[in-house]
Parts: sequence; structure tokens; C-alpha cells
Amino acid sequence: MCAVSPATSPSDRPLRLGLLGCGNVGARFVELVDSESEAIARRTGIGLEVVRIAVRDPAKSRPASLDPARLEKRLTADARAVVNDPDVDLVVELIGGVEPARGLVLEALAAGKPVVSGNKELLAAMGGELLAAAEAAGVDLLFEASVAGAIPLVRILTESLAGERIVRLMGIVNGTTNYMLTRMAEDGLDYGEALAEAQALGLAEADPTADVEGYDAAAKAAILAGIAYDADVVASDVHREGITAVGASDIAFAHRLGYEVKLLAVAERTPGGEEGGPPAVSVRVHPAMVPKGHPLASVSGSFNAVFLDGAAAGELMVYGRGAGGLPTASAVLGDVIDAAHHLREHSRPRSARRRAPDLRPISELRTQYYLSIDVADRPGVLAAVASVFGEHHVSIRSMEQVGLAGEARLVFITHTALEADMQATLESLGRLEVVERVGCLLRVLGPESDGAPTALSRP
Amino acid sequence: MCAVSPATSPSDRPLRLGLLGCGNVGARFVELVDSESEAIARRTGIGLEVVRIAVRDPAKSRPASLDPARLEKRLTADARAVVNDPDVDLVVELIGGVEPARGLVLEALAAGKPVVSGNKELLAAMGGELLAAAEAAGVDLLFEASVAGAIPLVRILTESLAGERIVRLMGIVNGTTNYMLTRMAEDGLDYGEALAEAQALGLAEADPTADVEGYDAAAKAAILAGIAYDADVVASDVHREGITAVGASDIAFAHRLGYEVKLLAVAERTPGGEEGGPPAVSVRVHPAMVPKGHPLASVSGSFNAVFLDGAAAGELMVYGRGAGGLPTASAVLGDVIDAAHHLREHSRPRSARRRAPDLRPISELRTQYYLSIDVADRPGVLAAVASVFGEHHVSIRSMEQVGLAGEARLVFITHTALEADMQATLESLGRLEVVERVGCLLRVLGPESDGAPTALSRP
Repeated sequence: MCAVSPATSPSDRPLRLGLLGCGNVGARFVELVDSESEAIARRTGIGLEVVRIAVRDPAKSRPASLDPARLEKRLTADARAVVNDPDVDLVVELIGGVEPARGLVLEALAAGKPVVSGNKELLAAMGGELLAAAEAAGVDLLFEASVAGAIPLVRILTESLAGERIVRLMGIVNGTTNYMLTRMAEDGLDYGEALAEAQALGLAEADPTADVEGYDAAAKAAILAGIAYDADVVASDVHREGITAVGASDIAFAHRLGYEVKLLAVAERTPGGEEGGPPAVSVRVHPAMVPKGHPLASVSGSFNAVFLDGAAAGELMVYGRGAGGLPTASAVLGDVIDAAHHLREHSRPRSARRRAPDLRPISELRTQYYLSIDVADRPGVLAAVASVFGEHHVSIRSMEQVGLAGEARLVFITHTALEADMQATLESLGRLEVVERVGCLLRVLGPESDGAPTALSRP
Repeated sequence: MCAVSPATSPSDRPLRLGLLGCGNVGARFVELVDSESEAIARRTGIGLEVVRIAVRDPAKSRPASLDPARLEKRLTADARAVVNDPDVDLVVELIGGVEPARGLVLEALAAGKPVVSGNKELLAAMGGELLAAAEAAGVDLLFEASVAGAIPLVRILTESLAGERIVRLMGIVNGTTNYMLTRMAEDGLDYGEALAEAQALGLAEADPTADVEGYDAAAKAAILAGIAYDADVVASDVHREGITAVGASDIAFAHRLGYEVKLLAVAERTPGGEEGGPPAVSVRVHPAMVPKGHPLASVSGSFNAVFLDGAAAGELMVYGRGAGGLPTASAVLGDVIDAAHHLREHSRPRSARRRAPDLRPISELRTQYYLSIDVADRPGVLAAVASVFGEHHVSIRSMEQVGLAGEARLVFITHTALEADMQATLESLGRLEVVERVGCLLRVLGPESDGAPTALSRP
């Protein structure tokens, strides 16, 4: 046991928090600490107090739930002053974006102050650098809130599964696209209608690119892969496809075959990798067909969920609110209490030894595919199209033709094939004169079976 | 920072584990440590080694996966000798049952050795006493594996949600009964057939009482309620009903109304409780009708899941393997790594200040009910039965009659009613001459709506 002088022990007085950023999550975090600190102290013995808050514009109006008099004394426009304030024991970073957040976090860590961050962009861009800085300083950098909101994934991966060999991790980590896909599936909305509805509800931005093109999911995939495989994965390493090519007819077709269409963030071990080196992993974001019996298939609306497959633990899934001010603030609070406990005990953070990842390109993936293409409706077209698949060694498991005005849509399910071959097939199909449009490509989840994908004639 | 002499730091050599009990979970735990310790050391910097194993009969044959030569050197019949061995840094207790486990755990804690336990009966009977002993000794008592196998519920509740006001917790925590209910729902098996199948698969014991009468679920409910509400709840505090009265026809009927039937362990805050005192809580186990859209409804087979409702975090669910040697051993391993980290850092365990709970009896519950009763098939019977409901202030929302040979089954859904009134109704119905049998009582999950429960005529 260490001899800790009671006079200097932080347990004698509340832990003083400096907050950077007071947007939706930040304001809710201040409310939570203000309202719950007594209950938390009673439960955990740890007192918390938000003493300073850095914002871009201190004069801007804040939510009415924050007592203006108490707030005014804490607000400042000078973020560095908050980080370096000797009265601040721990820094909560909720600014978002890489700079100036990165510099401020590094400055706090160098000053020996633990940092709790909810900043997805920052962690996905330079998690490795920041974790190394935290380890060097011997203080915590915790970031539960940076991925999947209130869902305690980071803690489960780093603590509960610290001894586990993670085989695969698949997540629905973007609530906006899951909401859109759910609406398209349940009410037959087309892509544009679903997007307009999500925008009207405030779930999607006016420029929805980050959500619908999969950038948001790719950043979260990088963070999760980094933790699961102790690897320095960044967002730009992640193969990324969004949902803009997914139509209501693709979803309806998948439904008939017993599948839901979901945008998945996937990180998985793949064969290969050097002995003693980091595991070979594939990290990617793309829409996929998920069998209806799979736990991820029933995750609907704006909820998030991450499904894990551990060599010993088996299948695990965690489900919850992946966004929203209050749920995300709750995740920040859990990290703050954890860091406060470590600070009080003078304990160093858990080691997070990251290695350069052995990332495998998507071209090495082997899976079944769903593909829809629009073609001219005339004799011989199917033969021309089918021969393109054959030339590239992609075997067709089933095909169905859906008539449209003047042209036809062909829908294919392939046998398990190599992604490189499938991509070559797509390229050749795009050059065929009879192909009007290469539509939606979906990877089919699960091992190929004699089950659903052949039942194309099911009503 | 504490000055820790490197010469005595446990980080220099593997942490030496003493294992009590080497049954299904224990043997898998030894295998895991033996096979994964190098990878764990690389990831976490923590070396692990199982140095001694106490078993009832060291001569008994063990799984072939355990190297007999390595095993023999570690086995002993003297559990106290393992606990007191100066070469043992940490004790893993997988004996099961209250004694001698309780005495051994207290002895280990008193000697300043952290304990990891997977013993549900022990934690459900005297978790409060053991946690107080651990806090007094300044070492960890971790017990993730004691409830819901590989699902990291204990850590989520104690760490991620340390600042959260838990409104409600509902779990499918017994895989045997969930398997049986799933088979009854999906293939129309009756109770006896489902039980026989579960026994044939090794999911149910020859004497299935602990599972089908809800004792196992009640012990887990006590452990979870204790953590969620910092309350000293024991298994005998938990109101308990099993699934023996649930028939295939009840499940089929619930299905038609849009519900699944699940055996739920519930712990929830209720109105009342004194200012500043512990929250008033209801802790109970009973079969319930779960709306099909609810995340718990899709948990099928022998899987477990716990659904949480937090005031800030919102809805969360964790799903996974609730039993089985390897998944449970994985949970033990996560706790061991956690305890090893704390030991290396000389950090005291998180405070677990338990209070006497303010437990509310089930008679105060207010919910909707499903009830099936078998009656003589003659005029006037329905009037007699309906008047019993009315006398006890239980309002009937819908009723349907199902004809059987010579008699009739009446199936009721009530409006929201007080449990005390419903119990009085059941008692009076049992005394009615025309009632042949009071069948299955199910609580209906969720607020009363204008939705499913009225749609009794749906095909």
C-alpha cells in the first residue's frame, strides 16, 4: 500500500473539471454533474465539480436548464487557460475536430492531467499518438463517448475483454443511416424520402455526406479496430461505402430472402499475418444483408449496436443510444468517474501498446454478393451479362428479373467469391453496352448455406 | 505518484493464481490462461500463471486438453492451503455453493489477496458481507462471472454507469428456460416436451427445479439489483415465479397479440422511499409478455440479455452467452486481469457502499395481466367469472373463449391493475365451483396502450 498524505488526497475535495466545448453534449454534461454530484459522491466517494468551461463565444445564449449565474462565472473563451488552470484537475474535451482539440489534449496530458474526450474525429485521426502521450504522462485518456454514444463499448473491449481474442466486430454505428434504412424497409420510402424525413427530424444534416457516405461510421470503425486489435488504425485506412446506391427495391428484395439491409462497420481478423506480429485485419464500412435471425437485424431506427465474436466469450452484442446529448454525456460521466478513481489511487492507466496494423485490402475479402443492375429489355442480354460474371470467376447462385418500363432490372446473388473478382465484374458490367446502370452492391453476411439466398421465388 | 520498489513489484513476474474448483468453468479457465498468457502479457504487460488448483478429488480424471504432467504438480485437495500459500497472489473461487466457499473467500481477503468469484449462490446470499470484507482489506472482490456468463454486466453497472440513475433493469438471465420458451414458441412444443429436449441437450438438470421455478434467475436478480441500487439484496428477498404454468397455448395466444413470453428478472425503482434514503425498489422474477418490437423479444434459445433503462444513458441492452464453460471462463479472465492491474498499481477497490434496501412487495406492482383459466362450458359461467374480477376492482380489457373437449378456456387481458387486487381475484377464482383450473398468469410489459392487447380477433 502506498502512503498517501490525507491532506493532499484529492478525495478530500471535489475533483475539479475543466470543460472544453459546451454544445449539446457539453451542456448536458454540466447539467448531469450539477444535478447528480451529490448522489455520485454518496455512491462512489468521489466529488465532482465543473469549475471552468471554455467556449468559442461566452456571450452566446445557453440552455435554460443551466443556471445562468453559476454558468457565467465558469465561462471563458480561452481554452488554453482552462487546460493550464492549476484549479483544473481533469480536462473534458468536447470540442470536436482535430485542431485545436489535439493541441489542447496533448497540453493537458503533458501537464499530468487526465483527459476524457468525446471527439470521434480526433481519436480516429490520431488515437495512437494521444494514447502514447497519455501513457508517457502516466495519466488516463478515456474516450468512451467518442464512439456509439452511451454504449459502453470501449470499456468492454479494454477491460472485460482484455484477455480475449476478438475474432470479429460488426457494428451499426451510425443512427442516421440506420433510421433511413429502417424507414425504407418498414414503409417502402425511397432513399430521397427517407433522407428528407431524417433531415426534418434533425437526425441528418443539411449536407448529409458524413452519414450517408459512411465517413462517420469509418471513423468509429477505426477507433473500435484500434482497441480490439491494439493497432494504430486511422479513419483513412478504412474501406468505405455508403448507402446512396441502396434503393427501396433492394431492401424489399432482401426482405423477401429473409434479410435486413444495414450499414455495417466491420473489423475482423483475416488469415495471414506474421508469427508474433500484429494480426492481419480487415476494417471496412459498407451496406450488407444481415439474416433476420441475427441480433443486428432487429436493431432499428436510430439505435446503434455492436456485435462481437470472441474466441472464448462467444457472441456478444451491446445495444443502445449511439448519439444524443444526454446519452453521450452519460458516457463522458462514466469516464470522468473512472479517471477520478485512478487519480485518487495514483494508479497509472492501463497500457495501450499500439502497433502498426497489418491491414488487408478489401480486394482479399471472400463473401457472397447481392447486385442489382438495370439493363435494356431485349433478347440475349442475360447471356451477355452472365458471361461477364463467368469471365471473372464469379459464380451466380440465383438471378431474378424484375420488369421496368422499357428496361429491366436484374438481381443477382452470387456464390462466395473474391472481392477482387467481383470488382472486376462490376467494372466490366459497367462497360457493357446493354447495361444502363450498375445499381446496388451488398455483401451478404454469414457463411454460404443452402438456405435463404436460393429461395428467390418465395412470395 | 507512489514510490514502488521495482524489486518487489508484481509486474516483474507473473501474477500467481490459486484456483479453487476445477469443474467445467475452472478447467476452461486453466486452458485459457495456459494458452493466452503470452498474448495477454504482450497486450497488457501483465503475466498470469495458475500455480495451484484445489479440487475435491485430485485423482479424478480431467479434460484431455489440460496437460496431465503440468496439472498434477498443481492439484491439491486442500483448499485452505491454496488460499494461504505465500506463492498465491490472487484467488479464483469457482467452487459454487455458500460453504466452504464463503469461509475461503473471507480468508483470502483477510490475507490481502484479491478474489475473483464466479459463484452465484455465494454472491446472492452474502454479497454485502463479502464486499465489506474486501473494502476493509483494501483488495478487489470481482464477480462478473457470477451472473450472465460472458456478458459484462457487472462492469458496465459498476464502472460505465457509476454516475447513472438506473430506472429499470430487466433480464433474460436463465438460458435453460429461455431455450424452452423459444422451442414452445417456434415449434409449438408443450412444456413437458420442451423440458425433455432441454434435458437431452444437457441444458437442464435431471431435477430442473432451480431453472424452471426461477431460483437461478432470482439469485441473479439479487446480484444485479445489489449493484444497480447499492443495496444489500439477497436471493430470498426476490419475488419468484417460474414457468411451470406456461403452456404452448398461452405462448401461441401471446404471439397472436404481438408478444413473446419470456422469464424476466426485473429490478426497478418504484415511487416512494425516504428522502436521502435508499431508493424504493421492486425485485422480482416472473414470466412476462414482451412486445415483439422490444429488444428482449428477439433474444432466443439459450442466449441471455439484460436490458437497462438509465435516466441519462437511455435504453441499453447487453446480449450474449449467459452460461457455458468457456464464455464464463472468459469473464473470470477479464476480472483477473482487472484485479492484476489494480494489484500492480496498489490501488484500492472502488467503494461499494451497500445499504439496507427499501424493497417493495410485489403486491404494490401495477401492470396489465394476461390470465388463462379453464372453466365448465355452460351458460352463466362468464358472468360469474367476470363478476369476480369486478369485485376486486380489476377491469377486463378483453376476453376470448377457446373451446376444449367438455370444458372451455377463457383468456383475459386486464387493464392496468394493482397486483394485490389481481392476487385476490386469482384466489376468488380458484374457489369458484365452475373454475376447473386457474392457469397461467403473465405480466404484460410496457405501458398500457391502445395497441396490441385489444386485437384479440386478429388471425
